[in-house]
Amino acid sequence: MADALIHADRLWSRLMALAAIGATPAGGVNRQALSDGEIEAWRLVIGWGCDAGLEPATDAAGNLFLTLPGRDRSRPPLMLGSHIDSQPTGGKFDGAAGVLAALEAVVQLGEAGLEPDGDVTVVAWMNEEGSRFAPGMMGSEAFAGERSLDAIRAVRDGQGISVGEALDRLHAAFPGMARKPLGFPVAAYLELHIEQGPVLEATGRVVGVVTGIQGKKTFEVTVSGAEGHAGTLDMADRRDAVAAFGRMVTALNAEIGGFDAVIKFTIGRVRVEPNAPSVVPSRVVFSVDLRHPDNAVLDTTGARLTAICQEQVGPCTVEVRPLVSAPSNDFDAGLRAMIARAASDQGHAFMDILSAAGHDARHLAKVCPSAMIFIPCRGGLSHVEHEWAEPAHVAAGAAVLAQVLRELVAVPPGPHDPAA
Amino acid sequence: MADALIHADRLWSRLMALAAIGATPAGGVNRQALSDGEIEAWRLVIGWGCDAGLEPATDAAGNLFLTLPGRDRSRPPLMLGSHIDSQPTGGKFDGAAGVLAALEAVVQLGEAGLEPDGDVTVVAWMNEEGSRFAPGMMGSEAFAGERSLDAIRAVRDGQGISVGEALDRLHAAFPGMARKPLGFPVAAYLELHIEQGPVLEATGRVVGVVTGIQGKKTFEVTVSGAEGHAGTLDMADRRDAVAAFGRMVTALNAEIGGFDAVIKFTIGRVRVEPNAPSVVPSRVVFSVDLRHPDNAVLDTTGARLTAICQEQVGPCTVEVRPLVSAPSNDFDAGLRAMIARAASDQGHAFMDILSAAGHDARHLAKVCPSAMIFIPCRGGLSHVEHEWAEPAHVAAGAAVLAQVLRELVAVPPGPHDPAA
Repeated sequence: MADALIHADRLWSRLMALAAIGATPAGGVNRQALSDGEIEAWRLVIGWGCDAGLEPATDAAGNLFLTLPGRDRSRPPLMLGSHIDSQPTGGKFDGAAGVLAALEAVVQLGEAGLEPDGDVTVVAWMNEEGSRFAPGMMGSEAFAGERSLDAIRAVRDGQGISVGEALDRLHAAFPGMARKPLGFPVAAYLELHIEQGPVLEATGRVVGVVTGIQGKKTFEVTVSGAEGHAGTLDMADRRDAVAAFGRMVTALNAEIGGFDAVIKFTIGRVRVEPNAPSVVPSRVVFSVDLRHPDNAVLDTTGARLTAICQEQVGPCTVEVRPLVSAPSNDFDAGLRAMIARAASDQGHAFMDILSAAGHDARHLAKVCPSAMIFIPCRGGLSHVEHEWAEPAHVAAGAAVLAQVLRELVAVPPGPHDPAA
Repeated sequence: MADALIHADRLWSRLMALAAIGATPAGGVNRQALSDGEIEAWRLVIGWGCDAGLEPATDAAGNLFLTLPGRDRSRPPLMLGSHIDSQPTGGKFDGAAGVLAALEAVVQLGEAGLEPDGDVTVVAWMNEEGSRFAPGMMGSEAFAGERSLDAIRAVRDGQGISVGEALDRLHAAFPGMARKPLGFPVAAYLELHIEQGPVLEATGRVVGVVTGIQGKKTFEVTVSGAEGHAGTLDMADRRDAVAAFGRMVTALNAEIGGFDAVIKFTIGRVRVEPNAPSVVPSRVVFSVDLRHPDNAVLDTTGARLTAICQEQVGPCTVEVRPLVSAPSNDFDAGLRAMIARAASDQGHAFMDILSAAGHDARHLAKVCPSAMIFIPCRGGLSHVEHEWAEPAHVAAGAAVLAQVLRELVAVPPGPHDPAA
C-alpha cells in the first residue's frame, strides 16, 4: 500500500539532490535562511512542484507554497510541510525531510489522478532555524500572527543585513510569483520531522505520533558586582559576580533542575567581565533554558528563577530578563489518531512521543488543527553534519503522512488508486 | 634636603612625557611589553640617561640598564628601578614611577658631581605586567634564574608572536647597544612603586616601608563533562560542566575564601564550551588566584583546592594545574631600616606595609638584599586608566629612595652636595 502512496526512491533521490545545495565537506548542509543556497533550493523544489502541476506562491514573510488545486478552491487548504533552511553545520534531513515527504505525498496524489475536495498546499516556512537571523520560526510565527512582519523585517544578521533586505532579495529572485495574503485560513496542518532525540531508535519504533511540544522559557540573567584587585581587596569588601553566580548555579540546579524527572534546566552560555585572572569579576551574564511539558510547572519554576537568584545575590545585584516564553501544546487528537491508525495499517511500530525541540507546527497549532509525525534519526543527533535518517524510515514516515493526507481530502486510499 | 636629592619638577615632567607614549583617550596608558610603544619609551629613557652620562646596556632577557660608573667598577652594582611596560588599560604610574624615580636619584647623584664607590644601575625589567605575554615578571625571573630564557622566549601573545621574536625585534631596534650577561651579581636592589592598595591613603601616610610580598599561588582548573541537547537530555544523564563549576565556586569560596580575614581567593577568568544557550556545557576552564602572607596557610589551602574540586565534581572530571607558586618573602631588614630612617629624616609619615601585589623585587630578593618603597595612589586603584599619584607623593618617595641610595654608595647626603 505504501508504494501506492509515495515513490520512496524518488523521495530519497530528491532528498539527496536538495542536500547537494549548501553541501559541506563533512557531509552536512549549510543552507541558512534567505541565503543564496536557500534561493537555489527554492528553484529546485518549485521545479519539482511545477512539473507535477502544483501552483507556486509566496507571502510577505517569505514562506513558499506549492498548491495542488482541489475541486472546491474556496475551501481553506490542507497544508503540510516543514522548512528547507539549515543550521550552519546542519544535516540533510532536519526540515528537508518534512518538505520533500509532503511534496511526494501531494505529487503522488495528483499523479494518481485523484482530485482532492479542496486545495492541498506544500509549505516551506521561512527561517525555522534562527541561526542567521535569531530567533527562528519567523515564517510560521508571522503566518500565525504571533510576531509582526515589521519586527521580523528589522532583525539583522551578523553582517548587518536585515531580514527585510534579505526577503526583498528572495522575492526579486522570483519575479511574478503569486502572492498569498499573510495568514490565510488553513483547514489543518501536518509536519513530518526527524525526532532529534534518541527515543524512537532506542525503542525500535519507526513512527512517532507527536503528542505535543514541551514548553520552553529562556532568560538572560545579569549579575553585577564591582571590579577589584585580586591581591589587595579584602574578601569582606568584595562584590564578586562569579561568587554570586556560583551560588545561583548551585541553588538553581538543585531547586529547578531537580524539580521532577522530566524538567530540563540548562545554563549553557556564560560571559564574565573583565575575565582576567587577577581581577575580582564585576559582571556575569548567563543564559537559562527551561523546558517542561506541563505549563503550570514551567510558570511556577520560571517565577522561582528570579526569587532564587535574588536569594543568592549577596552583595551584588541581579537582573533577570525573560526572552522566550513558549507554552507546551497538545496536538489535535483527531489527527493524532489518524496518524496512529495509518502507522498501524502500514505495519510500523509506533508510539506517542513528546517533542522536546520546537517546530513550526507549534505556531500552526494556534490557527488550525495540527499534528506531527516523527521518524528516527541515528543516535538521536541533529544539528550536526553527520545527522542521518534511514531511507526505510523516511519512506515509512512519508507513506503515513500520505495516507493521512488522502483521508483528510476525502480520497479513500487504495481501491480508487490506479497505481495500486 | 629633598631638593638636593632629586629635582621634583623634572621627575614629574618626565613621568608625564613617558605617559604620552601609548597614551589612551581616557587618560591612561597602553604600552604593553615589547610593543612599539615600549621601544619608543626605551628611546626616551635611554636619551635622558645618556644626557646625564649613564651607560645604556641590555641583556638576553630584554632588560634595560642605565649605569652611572662608580670608582671601583669591579664591584657588583647597586641596582634600582621597576618596569615601563603597562596593562592594556593601565595608568601613568605603575612601574614608570619606579624607573623614573630611580633615574632621577641616579642622575642627580651624578649631576652633583658625586662619584659612588661602585656602579649604580637603573633598571627597567622586561614584561612585568604579563598582559601581552603571560605570566609576567619575565625579565626579573630570567635575571634571577627563576625561569629559563628558552621557556620565556617560547611564550606567544594573542597574535601568535613569540617573546623570542619580540625580543629580537627590540634588540634590533638598538643595534650596537652593550650586552650584559644575564644575572650578573648585584650588591642590592631598591624599587619604588605605587601601593596599588588603599592603606597609605586611608592612614594618611606618604611612605610605605614594604616588609615583604604576600605569597601567591595560581591554578588553572579544567572541568570536563559532556555536550548535550538542552531540550532532550535528561537531567539525570547530564555531565554538565557549568553545574559542577557552580558547586566548586560555592565550596571554594566558602572554605578557602573564608579561611581567615587576610586570605585573598579569586576566580577571575572563566571559559565555557561550547557556550551556546541550548547546549549542555561540556567544559569549563577557570583561573584561581590565591594569596596569603603566611606560606603555611598558602600551602594548606592550595592543597585543599584540588580536594574540594574533586568533592564537587559529580559526574564530570576535573584537572587542577598549578601555574605560579610564589611564597611570601621578607625584604632585607637593613634596607627597610634605612628607608624608615630616610622617611623620618625627611619628615614624612610612614609605616610598615605588606605588598599584596607581586613585583620584580620579589625575584631580586632571591639574589641580593632587596627592599621596596611604596607611595600612595588615589583610591588604592591601579591597572585602571585613571590611576593617580600626587606629585608631592612621587617626589617624597623619590627623595627617600635617593637618600638611601646615597647612604648605600657611601656618599653622605647634604654636606657634600653642591646643590644643597
